[in-house]
Amino acid sequence: MVLVNGVFTDSVKANDRGLMYGDGVFRTLRIEHGAPRHWDRHYRKLNRDCAALGIACPPAALLANELNLAAEESPDCVAKIVVTRGPGERGYFPEPAVDPTRIILTSPIPDHVKHGEIRAHLCKLRLSRQPALAGIKHLNRIENILARMEWRDPGIAEGILLDAEGSVIEGTMSSLFLYREGVLVAPDLSLCGVDGVQRERVLEYACEKNIPVEIKPFGIDFLEQADEVFLVNSVIGLWQVVSLENSSWQKGAFCEALRSRLQ
Amino acid sequence: MVLVNGVFTDSVKANDRGLMYGDGVFRTLRIEHGAPRHWDRHYRKLNRDCAALGIACPPAALLANELNLAAEESPDCVAKIVVTRGPGERGYFPEPAVDPTRIILTSPIPDHVKHGEIRAHLCKLRLSRQPALAGIKHLNRIENILARMEWRDPGIAEGILLDAEGSVIEGTMSSLFLYREGVLVAPDLSLCGVDGVQRERVLEYACEKNIPVEIKPFGIDFLEQADEVFLVNSVIGLWQVVSLENSSWQKGAFCEALRSRLQ
Repeated sequence: MVLVNGVFTDSVKANDRGLMYGDGVFRTLRIEHGAPRHWDRHYRKLNRDCAALGIACPPAALLANELNLAAEESPDCVAKIVVTRGPGERGYFPEPAVDPTRIILTSPIPDHVKHGEIRAHLCKLRLSRQPALAGIKHLNRIENILARMEWRDPGIAEGILLDAEGSVIEGTMSSLFLYREGVLVAPDLSLCGVDGVQRERVLEYACEKNIPVEIKPFGIDFLEQADEVFLVNSVIGLWQVVSLENSSWQKGAFCEALRSRLQ
Repeated sequence: MVLVNGVFTDSVKANDRGLMYGDGVFRTLRIEHGAPRHWDRHYRKLNRDCAALGIACPPAALLANELNLAAEESPDCVAKIVVTRGPGERGYFPEPAVDPTRIILTSPIPDHVKHGEIRAHLCKLRLSRQPALAGIKHLNRIENILARMEWRDPGIAEGILLDAEGSVIEGTMSSLFLYREGVLVAPDLSLCGVDGVQRERVLEYACEKNIPVEIKPFGIDFLEQADEVFLVNSVIGLWQVVSLENSSWQKGAFCEALRSRLQ
């Protein structure tokens, strides 16, 4: 099911700047029993990401209404919300008077959400560092695609991405954390990576439970010394990484407790 | 005028990976008296760029035929050719069986092509370094947009981009060169930037005329010491930069000779 600017249709104007330049942002979330999960958080993030690109974010009520239309059709699904800068003439300079395009696409909940522990691939592609785009879930995703094309083994659920200098950043479609000696460690995302809603929830959980948190750059050696390594996003919830190239980890209690909380 | 997969229509499937992820490449060229200029070069480049992303480039004859349909409607125009990986399910992994999407959009020749000498802005945004994408004219263009949004003065025709380490790379929509003491110097594009058709033509011109060429990284200080600085692309031809922040250059003979040759 696809809804474009509130209308059930599967097509978008060919000159949309989302298509011409990847000029837009997106969110992926679960709809459960007809209700979008964590909509407030997702909208706040959408709004922040739009602002970072100078796109006028559509009002929350308008998007919520369209999400509800989608939820009536598909009460349990994955919903993707795309906001682009809208159609435009040729050229990078955006005409300010154009309305952003709103696209909502639903798809079935994938089987892989049932995974608890997963094997991961260490991607050869390195993320570039771009502080002007770091944290934003924008539509420029060729790096993620090239990284995802590195493996075809269905036994590998996700790929771990480092940046150009070797800092561990994230999964191709998920946020990464590690837990070590009682401390939760998250990668610094000031130079690249996506700062997502589930990452925010994990950091809040640690805060509530008085678990010390460190947000800092670290390399693969540090990751290998972790007690638990895990990935989160709004579709999968939490996957514990139990195998990555030559490293392996036991199923862990921190991940188990956190998974129940996120669900 | 828009042609999508050979059909006159202005719409594209909402789940096209070009829109979802910027998963595609493009070319911009002139159609003059009903004929696409330098089509062979543009197709070679399109084919190389598709290959770099693992996209099956549509056959040259098919695209040429569609360009001719466009040229019948608009014998003198700018044509943009976009090739995306095609529609797809949610997720970065591309389904191999999908046909790429072909989009041809025409637009009027802009007034600014008449400029000979121009003022340029030095962009604050720095291009990120990504060797996996360097040289490719792909659809992930948010950096160019953010750079282009830095100025509104209509007297400034183009912005000059440096990379994260301060190397001069290109204009937001053009390739950059400088000429100094009889030597043509082009930025090294192994880490970022677009390696375009007109850049290739300029390098060939120098080769024919036995003008020494250096392709190397250089910073803004080196640019300022140039005798002539200029920008090329397939729409504008050649613009000599006569003013950039506090630097200025006189109208130059090298640029004048090269401009006649490119036309």
